Amino acid sequence: MNSDSLDFDISRYLVECRRLTLDEIKEHVPANPRHSGGLYQLLMDYPLRPAKALRPALCIATGMSMGGYLDSVLPSAAALELFHNAFLVHDDIEDGSVTRRHAPTLHNLHGMAAAVNVGDGMLALALGPLLDNVRALGIGAAFRILQVFARMARESAEGQMLELSWIREGRWDLTDRDYVRMVHKKTGWYSFITPVLVGTIAAGTLAVRREAMARVALLLGIAFQIQDDLLSLEGEEAEVGKDGWGDLWEGKYTLILLHALRTATQAQRQEALRILTLPRPGGEGASSRPVKTAADVSWLADLLRGRGGESLAHARAVARAHALRARLIVDREIAPLPPSVHRTFLTSLVDYVLSRTH
Amino acid sequence: MNSDSLDFDISRYLVECRRLTLDEIKEHVPANPRHSGGLYQLLMDYPLRPAKALRPALCIATGMSMGGYLDSVLPSAAALELFHNAFLVHDDIEDGSVTRRHAPTLHNLHGMAAAVNVGDGMLALALGPLLDNVRALGIGAAFRILQVFARMARESAEGQMLELSWIREGRWDLTDRDYVRMVHKKTGWYSFITPVLVGTIAAGTLAVRREAMARVALLLGIAFQIQDDLLSLEGEEAEVGKDGWGDLWEGKYTLILLHALRTATQAQRQEALRILTLPRPGGEGASSRPVKTAADVSWLADLLRGRGGESLAHARAVARAHALRARLIVDREIAPLPPSVHRTFLTSLVDYVLSRTH
Repeated sequence: MNSDSLDFDISRYLVECRRLTLDEIKEHVPANPRHSGGLYQLLMDYPLRPAKALRPALCIATGMSMGGYLDSVLPSAAALELFHNAFLVHDDIEDGSVTRRHAPTLHNLHGMAAAVNVGDGMLALALGPLLDNVRALGIGAAFRILQVFARMARESAEGQMLELSWIREGRWDLTDRDYVRMVHKKTGWYSFITPVLVGTIAAGTLAVRREAMARVALLLGIAFQIQDDLLSLEGEEAEVGKDGWGDLWEGKYTLILLHALRTATQAQRQEALRILTLPRPGGEGASSRPVKTAADVSWLADLLRGRGGESLAHARAVARAHALRARLIVDREIAPLPPSVHRTFLTSLVDYVLSRTH
Repeated sequence: MNSDSLDFDISRYLVECRRLTLDEIKEHVPANPRHSGGLYQLLMDYPLRPAKALRPALCIATGMSMGGYLDSVLPSAAALELFHNAFLVHDDIEDGSVTRRHAPTLHNLHGMAAAVNVGDGMLALALGPLLDNVRALGIGAAFRILQVFARMARESAEGQMLELSWIREGRWDLTDRDYVRMVHKKTGWYSFITPVLVGTIAAGTLAVRREAMARVALLLGIAFQIQDDLLSLEGEEAEVGKDGWGDLWEGKYTLILLHALRTATQAQRQEALRILTLPRPGGEGASSRPVKTAADVSWLADLLRGRGGESLAHARAVARAHALRARLIVDREIAPLPPSVHRTFLTSLVDYVLSRTH
C-alpha cells in the first residue's frame, strides 16, 4: 500500500471535486432562461441530489496528478457529470425505477415526456464545456477529447442494448466473460475509461501512458461494478422492498446471479428463471402480465447468498483479481509521479477497492 | 418566380440528396457489429423508412449553391438526418404515437427501453460525421459546425419543454407570437436554421451572408410548420382515427387552434378546453383518466374548420407573410448566385411554399 494513502480522506477529495464540477456546470446554465418551460430547473435536479461524483474526481485526479491545470480538466469533468446524469434519467425510464438518490425519479415527478426531453437537454448541454476546452487546451486536444466522448456514447448505447437483448431473449446461460464484456461497454467506458483518458489528454500525456491508464480504468471499473452488485445484496440497505434489492427486482445481470444459476439444482434453476422473466410491478409490460412478488425476490436473494456464500465468494474473487491487476499498473505508472493529493486519491482508490475484497 | 424553377423537379433533388446522405450514414455504422445487441439494426429502422429528408437537402443545396464541395457538406447532412431521427424516436415516446412513416413506432415494435436507448445511440453516432468534418473542412470550420449543432440541440430541448410546460399548465391563452417563438425553438432551429447555417459554413461563406441565410431559414421554417398544420387538417389523410388528425389527438398547439379558441363562443371554448386537456388513448396518464374519443376529435376538427374557414384563412395568411419575407431575402442573396441545380432547389422551395398559400 502506498504510504501516503493511509490517512487520506477519499470522501473529502470527492466532495471538493463535486463542488468544483457543479460550479463549472452552472456556468453553462443560462442565468435567466426565458421561454424554455423550466428545462434548466429539471435539468439540475439529479446533478444537485447528493452523490459521490466519482467520474469528475477521476478525471480531475488523473489530469492534475500528471501535471495538468485545474482549468484544463474542469470542463471535461463537467461534461462527464452531465452525460452521467443524462444516462441516469434515461436509465430510470428504461428500468421503470421509482427512486434515485433517495428521492422519486424524474419521470415519476414530471412525467415520462419531460424526463426523456430533460435527458436529451443534458446531452446537449454537455457539448458546451467540451467546446470550451479549446480555450484551455487548444483545438487539437479539445478535438481528441470530443472523439473520446463520441466513442464513449456509442459504447454505452451498445452495452445497454446488449443487456436489453439478453433480457428480451431470456438469455441466462452467460459466462463471466460475457458479463465483463457487457460491463466494459455499458458502464466501464463512461464511468472509468473516459474520465481517465480525458484526464491524460488534458495533461498532455504521452500516448503510451494514456493506454496504460485506460487499462487501469477498465480493470478498476469492473472491480467496482462487481463490488456494487455485492453491496446491493449484502449491504445494510439490502432489504426487500422496491428500493432494496433493486437489482433483483429489475432482473439485472450480475456475476453473483450468473454463478448461482450455473451451480443451482435443476429445480432451483427453473424457479429462478420463472421469477427472472417476470416484469417488476409498474415496469414495462407489467399491466398485462403477472409481476414479481416480494416473496419471489426474497427467494432469489436466498439462492444467491446460499450454499455457504459460494456465489458471493466467486464474485469477490473476480473483483479482487481485477483490482490486483490494476494495482500492478498503478505501481508502475502512478506511484512514481510527483507527490500530490491527486496521486494519493488515485492510489487510495485502488487500495480501497482491494480492501473491500478481503 | 425565378425562371429556372418552373420545370424543376423538387422531389427528384430530394431523392438524390437522401440517397447520398444514407450512404454517408452507413459509412459510420459498423459493418459487422459484435456484442451490441442489434443496436445498429434498430438504429437504421427510421432513417430507412420512406421520408423526404428535407434537412440534408437544405444543407447540401445551401453549401453547394455557394461553392462548397459535396464532400464538405455530406458529413453534416448525415449528422442532421441522424439528429432528426433521434428526435423522432424520442418524440414518438413522449407523444405516445402509434405509427411513424406508415409503420409502427419504434417503441411499439421493440419496447420503450430499447427505443430510448436507440435515440441516445443515434445522437452518439451523429458525432462521428461531425468529427469527420475536420478532413474536408479543417479543424476551425469543423469546430464552428459543432458549435451550431450544440446550440441546435439546446434550442430543440428548450422548445420541446416550452410546449410540454404549456400542456402541463393547461395554457391555451396563447398569442401567435408565443406560437412562432415555440416553433422557432422546437423545429425551426434543427429543421431549417442549422441545415442552412452549416451549409454556409461548409462553403466558407462570409458571416453577413450566413446571417441572412439563417433569417431565410427561420422564415421558411415557420411557413412550412404552419402549412403542415393546415395540411394535417385539410389534406386527404386527415380522417378521424389514431393516424389521421394526429395533431388533434395529441392536443398539439397550432395557429389554427389558437385562433379558433380566441374567436369561439364561451360555450365552444369551454367544450374545446375540456377535450384538449384529456389524454389520448394509450398516451401517458391514459390508464387512470378518461380519454379523448373520436367524437371529441371530430367536434374539434369542425370547430377549427368552421365559421367560413376563418381560422384556416388566418393561419394561411401568417404562413404567406413569412414566405414573402423569405422571398425578399432569397431574391437578394440567392438569385444572384451562379446558376446551379442547388440554387434552383432553394428558390423553388420558396416558390413552392408561396404557391401553397394562394
